[in-house]
Amino acid sequence: MIQHESLRRFLAEDAPYGDITTGSIIPDGEGRGIILSRETGIIAGIEEAIFLFAECGVEARALARDGDWIDPGQQILDISGPIHGILLAERTVLNLMGRMSGIATATRRFSALIDSVMPGARIAGTRKTAPGLRFFDKKAIILGGGDPHRNSLSDAVLIKDNHLAIVGIEEAVRRARGVSQYRVIEVEVETPEDACTAAAAGADIIMLDNMDPETVMMTIRLLKDGGLRERVKLEISGSITPANAGSYVGCEIDLISSGWLTHSVKNFDLSLDMRMALRTIKI
Amino acid sequence: MIQHESLRRFLAEDAPYGDITTGSIIPDGEGRGIILSRETGIIAGIEEAIFLFAECGVEARALARDGDWIDPGQQILDISGPIHGILLAERTVLNLMGRMSGIATATRRFSALIDSVMPGARIAGTRKTAPGLRFFDKKAIILGGGDPHRNSLSDAVLIKDNHLAIVGIEEAVRRARGVSQYRVIEVEVETPEDACTAAAAGADIIMLDNMDPETVMMTIRLLKDGGLRERVKLEISGSITPANAGSYVGCEIDLISSGWLTHSVKNFDLSLDMRMALRTIKI
Amino acid sequence: MIQHESLRRFLAEDAPYGDITTGSIIPDGEGRGIILSRETGIIAGIEEAIFLFAECGVEARALARDGDWIDPGQQILDISGPIHGILLAERTVLNLMGRMSGIATATRRFSALIDSVMPGARIAGTRKTAPGLRFFDKKAIILGGGDPHRNSLSDAVLIKDNHLAIVGIEEAVRRARGVSQYRVIEVEVETPEDACTAAAAGADIIMLDNMDPETVMMTIRLLKDGGLRERVKLEISGSITPANAGSYVGCEIDLISSGWLTHSVKNFDLSLDMRMALRTIKI
Amino acid sequence: MIQHESLRRFLAEDAPYGDITTGSIIPDGEGRGIILSRETGIIAGIEEAIFLFAECGVEARALARDGDWIDPGQQILDISGPIHGILLAERTVLNLMGRMSGIATATRRFSALIDSVMPGARIAGTRKTAPGLRFFDKKAIILGGGDPHRNSLSDAVLIKDNHLAIVGIEEAVRRARGVSQYRVIEVEVETPEDACTAAAAGADIIMLDNMDPETVMMTIRLLKDGGLRERVKLEISGSITPANAGSYVGCEIDLISSGWLTHSVKNFDLSLDMRMALRTIKI
Amino acid sequence: MIQHESLRRFLAEDAPYGDITTGSIIPDGEGRGIILSRETGIIAGIEEAIFLFAECGVEARALARDGDWIDPGQQILDISGPIHGILLAERTVLNLMGRMSGIATATRRFSALIDSVMPGARIAGTRKTAPGLRFFDKKAIILGGGDPHRNSLSDAVLIKDNHLAIVGIEEAVRRARGVSQYRVIEVEVETPEDACTAAAAGADIIMLDNMDPETVMMTIRLLKDGGLRERVKLEISGSITPANAGSYVGCEIDLISSGWLTHSVKNFDLSLDMRMALRTIKI
Amino acid sequence: MIQHESLRRFLAEDAPYGDITTGSIIPDGEGRGIILSRETGIIAGIEEAIFLFAECGVEARALARDGDWIDPGQQILDISGPIHGILLAERTVLNLMGRMSGIATATRRFSALIDSVMPGARIAGTRKTAPGLRFFDKKAIILGGGDPHRNSLSDAVLIKDNHLAIVGIEEAVRRARGVSQYRVIEVEVETPEDACTAAAAGADIIMLDNMDPETVMMTIRLLKDGGLRERVKLEISGSITPANAGSYVGCEIDLISSGWLTHSVKNFDLSLDMRMALRTIKI
Repeated sequence: MIQHESLRRFLAEDAPYGDITTGSIIPDGEGRGIILSRETGIIAGIEEAIFLFAECGVEARALARDGDWIDPGQQILDISGPIHGILLAERTVLNLMGRMSGIATATRRFSALIDSVMPGARIAGTRKTAPGLRFFDKKAIILGGGDPHRNSLSDAVLIKDNHLAIVGIEEAVRRARGVSQYRVIEVEVETPEDACTAAAAGADIIMLDNMDPETVMMTIRLLKDGGLRERVKLEISGSITPANAGSYVGCEIDLISSGWLTHSVKNFDLSLDMRMALRTIKI
Repeated sequence: MIQHESLRRFLAEDAPYGDITTGSIIPDGEGRGIILSRETGIIAGIEEAIFLFAECGVEARALARDGDWIDPGQQILDISGPIHGILLAERTVLNLMGRMSGIATATRRFSALIDSVMPGARIAGTRKTAPGLRFFDKKAIILGGGDPHRNSLSDAVLIKDNHLAIVGIEEAVRRARGVSQYRVIEVEVETPEDACTAAAAGADIIMLDNMDPETVMMTIRLLKDGGLRERVKLEISGSITPANAGSYVGCEIDLISSGWLTHSVKNFDLSLDMRMALRTIKI
Repeated sequence: MIQHESLRRFLAEDAPYGDITTGSIIPDGEGRGIILSRETGIIAGIEEAIFLFAECGVEARALARDGDWIDPGQQILDISGPIHGILLAERTVLNLMGRMSGIATATRRFSALIDSVMPGARIAGTRKTAPGLRFFDKKAIILGGGDPHRNSLSDAVLIKDNHLAIVGIEEAVRRARGVSQYRVIEVEVETPEDACTAAAAGADIIMLDNMDPETVMMTIRLLKDGGLRERVKLEISGSITPANAGSYVGCEIDLISSGWLTHSVKNFDLSLDMRMALRTIKI
Repeated sequence: MIQHESLRRFLAEDAPYGDITTGSIIPDGEGRGIILSRETGIIAGIEEAIFLFAECGVEARALARDGDWIDPGQQILDISGPIHGILLAERTVLNLMGRMSGIATATRRFSALIDSVMPGARIAGTRKTAPGLRFFDKKAIILGGGDPHRNSLSDAVLIKDNHLAIVGIEEAVRRARGVSQYRVIEVEVETPEDACTAAAAGADIIMLDNMDPETVMMTIRLLKDGGLRERVKLEISGSITPANAGSYVGCEIDLISSGWLTHSVKNFDLSLDMRMALRTIKI
Repeated sequence: MIQHESLRRFLAEDAPYGDITTGSIIPDGEGRGIILSRETGIIAGIEEAIFLFAECGVEARALARDGDWIDPGQQILDISGPIHGILLAERTVLNLMGRMSGIATATRRFSALIDSVMPGARIAGTRKTAPGLRFFDKKAIILGGGDPHRNSLSDAVLIKDNHLAIVGIEEAVRRARGVSQYRVIEVEVETPEDACTAAAAGADIIMLDNMDPETVMMTIRLLKDGGLRERVKLEISGSITPANAGSYVGCEIDLISSGWLTHSVKNFDLSLDMRMALRTIKI
Repeated sequence: MIQHESLRRFLAEDAPYGDITTGSIIPDGEGRGIILSRETGIIAGIEEAIFLFAECGVEARALARDGDWIDPGQQILDISGPIHGILLAERTVLNLMGRMSGIATATRRFSALIDSVMPGARIAGTRKTAPGLRFFDKKAIILGGGDPHRNSLSDAVLIKDNHLAIVGIEEAVRRARGVSQYRVIEVEVETPEDACTAAAAGADIIMLDNMDPETVMMTIRLLKDGGLRERVKLEISGSITPANAGSYVGCEIDLISSGWLTHSVKNFDLSLDMRMALRTIKI
């Protein structure tokens, strides 16, 4: 329900004045099609696809479930209804499913990599999503097995350098807690010392920003020495991708946040194959 | 003007209930920041950034122009105004500029590659954009020197296999032309013979879909033999990326459309550095 | 699907606080009605009417098709459902169908007139439509057999005097073509010489603006002499109405664009007759 | 303020993907233009024009006031600002001002006619407006000196035949008054007898629907005989246009409502002339 | 139909990024619930509740009607459908029904009190409603048996002190009547003399603003002496609540408007009890 | 910035067709006014008021700050600009400020009461807000010194009876934590035993729902005995109002959530007094 307005807007974007090709050259009639995978990975966006087709008067029946691991050639949705409606929704559906499945698949793969180098740690998203697509990008991360992290500036406290340039760590944590007990408080730090200060101040999560593996390890040691390690969760962040995550092998952290999951998406390859055009005849 | 509603929505997405961190821990005050490039490439989205900041009560002064080739460390925008407003807009601005600049840069690079292997041909986009971002993705392609291709189903006729399964090429072209003289008519074909049929039928552009280089060459020869080559523009399409474009060396085509430009975007790296926080004091 | 948001807005405009008459004086109940024509002409807006009634919980069954030639007294839609819903949608439906059918009918009649004085030429719309009704006005033109021309500033290039005051014809055409190959390029000219320049520069369509019949003929001759007539389509434009179109008899042009079709609409007369009020009793 | 959202939508309708002509061929720069009248009549829509231009970054200074009687050649607005913005707003401004001025002028002329044949009576609008333009159409009627009548189903009670088929006149008036004392109650009748019943029941206004002049006169006599004439206002309605209004000469009625004012609008002829293009040079 | 957009917005407000609790911990499945009253009073908002649940894919069957007098424990709606949808709509439904029923109940109770102290007078609302809830607040007043008064600044004329500081009473009434005959004209006065002036000027309703009971009675006497009492309706207004209405006993007025009905609402207590969770099993 | 769309909608609601009184009877001109308090309490909504006036072309200068404790007669805003604009915004401004200030004041008073009976505990809101006003109601709670609690279903996990009917406490907490580490997890319990189970399972906050003071105390004892008290925050909830909060004297809890703050709001009394009407003359 929640995202219906966005989904309607996506359709409108692709046809502000209708589909002038289909409207000009073929009479409407009932058709049938199949959305097929052309890759291996996690499928995402099925729920959205069903809504998009329904908005165009087309029924889409799911042959897989969001989050399923699928293979090339696998059938994802069985589509039937007016040909004009099918062709109107086609590209929007494929664009959205392609992006969401691309993110879900990348998340799953990155997650598997992390399991091998930092067992116990979990991949998390960031706010580095495509504008207007935050909900869908985050949902795809969850379907891929990642932690969505904050959805927006409104749902968790994240104290960063620009805040700390004005207020000190302890005071910042105190103020944030003073406004509400119902938000997790995270502090971004650049040094082991600040990590200890933040932990002592009562932060729930500490983000070790752009720290190299050695500094991460030193930070953990310092926190342990101070009896602070158990009090907080540790997140590493800052340009971490599958290409360089391996260098953190052995770091006992809890979370790895990576903008790469959503700011450098490779769409998942899907296609819609028309199978039959019923009640219309080739001329 | 046109996209103001979208831009406002992007901001709202990132703060449905405000910025709970900044609102909780720092008093508002005037600040100043600089948006810096961290890469080499084409900058895009400056106009949008200025509007986004203005919506948050912040003035952004351009230090570069959309479409400029920029270097790492180069200053793009000089930002000044309420700190709360700067931090509210920051992520949305960087996400949008990052995506647009990523697309513009990829377009420019792909374009340079094509110039060397298929002089005279031009890179073009597709409708494989992120949902809700069509306008921005297409604008970025133009800034990168590419042809935006159709914006939507409403602005050019593109007759594809699903249409041709119901109506023949000649009849399809005839009908489309019968509705309006003010649209370009393109036909997607898979064989050299169909290319000739489409050219003879009066199509303006012929899309050679998923043809290997040999078939493309054979198609051109056939068109020339039929005296049809001059009548149409030729577009090659179908999973063409910088990695495989080289195999088309020597093909005398006019356009190469590639979904890769927008469906597999790598964001351009930009950052906002706060330089000063005026009239607020560290506590 | 595309215009659902506009249609919902039309309904809201007519009842921001509900129908205070019907809500105050009659209990709801099932009713039935018929939309009847009171004129002869082309019916348009049936698809829209069905959606508008459905939004009010009312089922409307089409008894004619958009684009049909209808006679006075002919039944267009069979309406059944809650009386409150029928009366809520009634005026919006009649206003929209009345306007669209008025435009479609005028288009058909103007088209017939042109067939007799300029065989081969075709009537086309302009952007002189009622604000907010562009889609519906253009759809009505198509249903009446006309060419919709540009839908908006975004879908075809039309180089006019204000552009040519800054850039010359050749350069303007070159630049427009340089941005995209997927748009038709039209140039508006006022002299035969400029028409030739535009044709030579590669324009697809030349609009002869406010030219009298003699100048139109001279322009055609000049184009023919220069071997340019076949390269372009010719459109005449500028306050052309059924009243003065006859003076262009014999001009061998392709298109006549006329703002009159949509800026001076006479609504088509339709009415909704309630036939039965079921399950409610006269008190 | 109230209609800003509609006005923004009108602009968006004309350029969902920007102005591809202007954007492609001329660099932006400052320009200046004048909106001129080409007809004699009442000007309307100046306030709206100023807002529309402002949305495109252009300043428009009024040289006349809404409701002024203007002559051909008279200057209405002095426009200055970015050429791209001026051309973006131009057509939307002219379409809206053209429609509103057309309605205002027709209202003023119809009003003058009524003054001569039915002194004391006043012209009024109906809900037969263009969908989405109710506010603007009604405002134009007021500027032309007419009574706007109901704006929508929400602001006055109008009991019509479809209501009276279910509830009798007295009961209907009683119920409507029972819900709210803050609305005028009007009853539509077709016979002199029903007019008397409605007046006796306490209606504020009685609409004599489709009555010929003789029946109108008979109704007035009957009301006077019953001592009811002073209690109500009388409105005549039903396909009344300037062409047939004269036949009602001598009828002592208060209001003449006419859908003709807004359902058969002839746009008022206005043009925007660019006067100067500053800081850009012809190439 | 009319308020669907508002209702959708209310749902979106409660879940901009979905229901993270339900989505995280329980699989979806079919459930059933009952909305129960926990108080005695007038129920309102049933129609809205049905729509809100339907938007979440849930069917709600009414077990009472809007405006019914209900008792604690009484069943209002029978809900069945996806558990995720039920829980998504629950709070929004209860908040809206709680507010509307609270207003309807307060209106009914105030109305009964007035019947005993000022028989023949009627309670009316004001524009002192919660922003964005005007339609629902006014509907609740009607369901409680009150007069909604003006819905907005657009539907009745109310001449107040700020207007009268600029224009005198007679002139103000004359001007308002001069614009339209289809609106009720009310004048707010503070003295008996002004009440007489307004009545003589032709006002339909006179609002005696903040007058104590003695002055109200004196005003009525003065109006009667002037033969003006029958011409107008009298409304008393100004901080009148059930607590002080009794002091006006015996005042022969027609209307009592009270902002208290909507600006100091006590929500009606309702709850949704889940009865069964079908096809899902406790783990 | 964030709530601009809502604020614009509030204005539109009060004048879908403009202010027919002011528009009819007074010419526009510059005016000046003051918003005054008529009560003692916390002022809220100043920021919103400034925006609402600005939308109507009116400048409002703050004479107090959101969150200030103000007295009767105190000046809050100094308003100047077009009289038409001032009167257009007036009611919407007063309704919103009245509601927000009412909530802020009630929060501050309830908070002071709690300080005396349960020192260390803090008052918190709930989701029982007026539909469409969640943001403003929560902001008012913060200004009054309360904890806003969850803004929506999207920003904290709250496991309630309906969830626990399907999944056990431990499993529910485990699943919620499994999806994201960035949300606080709260569990609603009805027995001391369940409170211990939830604390042991790792909940961050435990809501003791509808527990009488004795059971609350027993729960705290049991948690202390189990060494669990320090691990969690305790919230009491369920029809707690200033009237009954005293009975919890001595309960060592952290939070008291109360729907009463927002579901039974008494508006704060404010007025706008026009001080001068410049450049318009009394007629």
